[in-house]
Amino acid sequence: MTEVISQRRIRAVDAALRERARAVIPGGMYGHLSANGLPPEYPQFYARAERAHVWDVDGNEYVDFMCSFGPVLLGHKHPKVEAAVAAQLARGDTMSGPGAAMVEAAELLTDRVAHADWAMFAKNGTDATTISLMIARAATGRSKVLAAAGAYHGAAPWFTMRDAGVTPEDRANLRYYTFNDIASVEEAVAAAGGDVAGIIVSPYRHDAGFDQELVDAGFARQLRALCDRIGAALIMDEVRAGFRLNDGGSWEPIGVAPDLSAWSKAIGNGYPLAAVLGAGRYADAATQIFVTGSFWYQAVPMAAAVATITAVRDEGAVPAMVKTGTLLREGLAAAAADAGVAITQTGPVQMPNLSFPGDENYARAAAFCARAVDHGVIFHPRHNWFVSAAHTQADVERAVAAAREGFRAVRERFGES
Amino acid sequence: MTEVISQRRIRAVDAALRERARAVIPGGMYGHLSANGLPPEYPQFYARAERAHVWDVDGNEYVDFMCSFGPVLLGHKHPKVEAAVAAQLARGDTMSGPGAAMVEAAELLTDRVAHADWAMFAKNGTDATTISLMIARAATGRSKVLAAAGAYHGAAPWFTMRDAGVTPEDRANLRYYTFNDIASVEEAVAAAGGDVAGIIVSPYRHDAGFDQELVDAGFARQLRALCDRIGAALIMDEVRAGFRLNDGGSWEPIGVAPDLSAWSKAIGNGYPLAAVLGAGRYADAATQIFVTGSFWYQAVPMAAAVATITAVRDEGAVPAMVKTGTLLREGLAAAAADAGVAITQTGPVQMPNLSFPGDENYARAAAFCARAVDHGVIFHPRHNWFVSAAHTQADVERAVAAAREGFRAVRERFGES
Repeated sequence: MTEVISQRRIRAVDAALRERARAVIPGGMYGHLSANGLPPEYPQFYARAERAHVWDVDGNEYVDFMCSFGPVLLGHKHPKVEAAVAAQLARGDTMSGPGAAMVEAAELLTDRVAHADWAMFAKNGTDATTISLMIARAATGRSKVLAAAGAYHGAAPWFTMRDAGVTPEDRANLRYYTFNDIASVEEAVAAAGGDVAGIIVSPYRHDAGFDQELVDAGFARQLRALCDRIGAALIMDEVRAGFRLNDGGSWEPIGVAPDLSAWSKAIGNGYPLAAVLGAGRYADAATQIFVTGSFWYQAVPMAAAVATITAVRDEGAVPAMVKTGTLLREGLAAAAADAGVAITQTGPVQMPNLSFPGDENYARAAAFCARAVDHGVIFHPRHNWFVSAAHTQADVERAVAAAREGFRAVRERFGES
Repeated sequence: MTEVISQRRIRAVDAALRERARAVIPGGMYGHLSANGLPPEYPQFYARAERAHVWDVDGNEYVDFMCSFGPVLLGHKHPKVEAAVAAQLARGDTMSGPGAAMVEAAELLTDRVAHADWAMFAKNGTDATTISLMIARAATGRSKVLAAAGAYHGAAPWFTMRDAGVTPEDRANLRYYTFNDIASVEEAVAAAGGDVAGIIVSPYRHDAGFDQELVDAGFARQLRALCDRIGAALIMDEVRAGFRLNDGGSWEPIGVAPDLSAWSKAIGNGYPLAAVLGAGRYADAATQIFVTGSFWYQAVPMAAAVATITAVRDEGAVPAMVKTGTLLREGLAAAAADAGVAITQTGPVQMPNLSFPGDENYARAAAFCARAVDHGVIFHPRHNWFVSAAHTQADVERAVAAAREGFRAVRERFGES
């Protein structure tokens, strides 16, 4: 067992930056990387990153199991990705037209993702899901889109998870179903009176704050058949899970092909890029819509994507993550059992989710994670974690050792469970 | 007069890339950087960029007056920006939290832009305008937003310039007025029954395909007074013009302060970043909305923004662009007069727009630009151009010489005007 010594240090630089931030950023920080809702043990600001390790602005080092909430797939500073980035950056990045790397990235993505005949690029995951809906609407001439209740498909007004700043009209064309429940989809289709442009679905249920749920293959097949029957687009939101579950589309192992898929996060190993991939029969609709962005044609992230997606295959990134994720899951299970603390682990091992049964307001999860941070490991109390291909067996051992401390903290505060 | 020799070369690499692109990208390319609607003399793909010069994939070199449609403000590979980027990239970019550079960028923007007390960052200009609307709605509890007819405020469904893929509900809360016409704004407010969350406006009228129109200071003041009277947010869309017109907010010279402003393009000299700036009284509303993106906290573009905005002041970028833009405008006027071709030049000299009176379907503009491309200068037939602080007097001389060839082509094909 790896011995872990608490590395709690004064976080004076982080505290000073938080104070400066409160003066010039609403609430001090916003969005999914805000530490406002996290225990105070978490740093808000990071200074440096190497492979699976990060350093906060006070010099504390951590094994990071959040990977920037997904983008870091091969680890920070992957040599081949960085070499491709440096070479492209030396030539040009944001120019008055795309570079050749855009074509190479489109060729590579359509080669690796079975359902895809074409690619369009954007910058945010939200861009990719929004464009997918636009293409589905342009193709079908219909308005309504079905999404799983509780899912997250982006932070634009049509889907963001709070109501503030959102008008009823922004969501007027959304209808909801229950993940893995085909009867609920049929009901939503009927309620929409057949006016369904598309059905958007995640590869598996990864709603933040809940235990994860793998897709039922039968549900996936029925969803595909339903879309075919009513002439709606099946839209796969691969933003969070893409290339972590499979070297290709996430439902390829179960043999179900979407019409459109939305990608971002990991496709450039942290360099900013999103993509919409589509079947040939949706290409015409894709040419009809007008979407663009000042930085969508940047050559550097395209070069990063080519290097990343190539390395995913060449270096066996998915099997590596499965192996590491399995070790982590087994280690966490053993550590929790040893501590006499009940836990629930759900979802693919590469995207671990740990919860505590009956954990009101995530109090146990917060106590667990706070102690883990103190012992040099970044987990998250209310969101799935991310394993990268750069996490080593030593990283897992350190994570499990920190988790032992975390489970002990839960046991001390909440008793045996 | 600088002598210019046509540099028309076989564009075999570009042609081959276009063919490959047509197989994997709908229509071969999309958005504002698509060469599909341009004369065939334009390259689609670029290989390299230095200061105000770019090279296409076949090795042809050009003086570029599009600057990637705005982002390149100080010229490609500005030494201080590149040094800041290299230093940050060596430490970390997309991490599990922002770097200190995010706070520095927020401090610098709120220091330089008079109306701004706080900053939020995003990735696309469209993100920044969308967030501005959300904050205005959260602050007022109202839904409707007024925009100038024909303006461009982004490519999301609520504003993109085509109807395909857009539902009526996406635009249900938009009402339109005429730029520089306060009576039309009053009418739109009345038609909205007072339910106006905000009025969005560009610093000047820069609608693509039209002559540009500077703002009337009286209109700006009346717009401010109207927003105060009805309790609506005045939202300035600085995405295209920000930091090209002024070292600070574009309406500061006329003394009119918006409540919220949306920025992107030039704030990181080509590195991908957008920002919403706001007055203190809108900070609470800004904390209520939920917006985020996987790459919004990237440290490298924040470091680029700090270096860029610092250099804008230290190196006198705005006066430099005014000087260069004035030289270009005067040179173009003289060249057109010498050729006996009537032209119209409008807008700020840093964002030149050249049109030909009575030019049906932009045929004269296309002939002019095609010939200029052949002589090594990138202009645009239907969109304003962009001067950067890196354009030299020699670049302008080369541009004017190429323009002489372009005007000759217009004269040959369309006769004297």
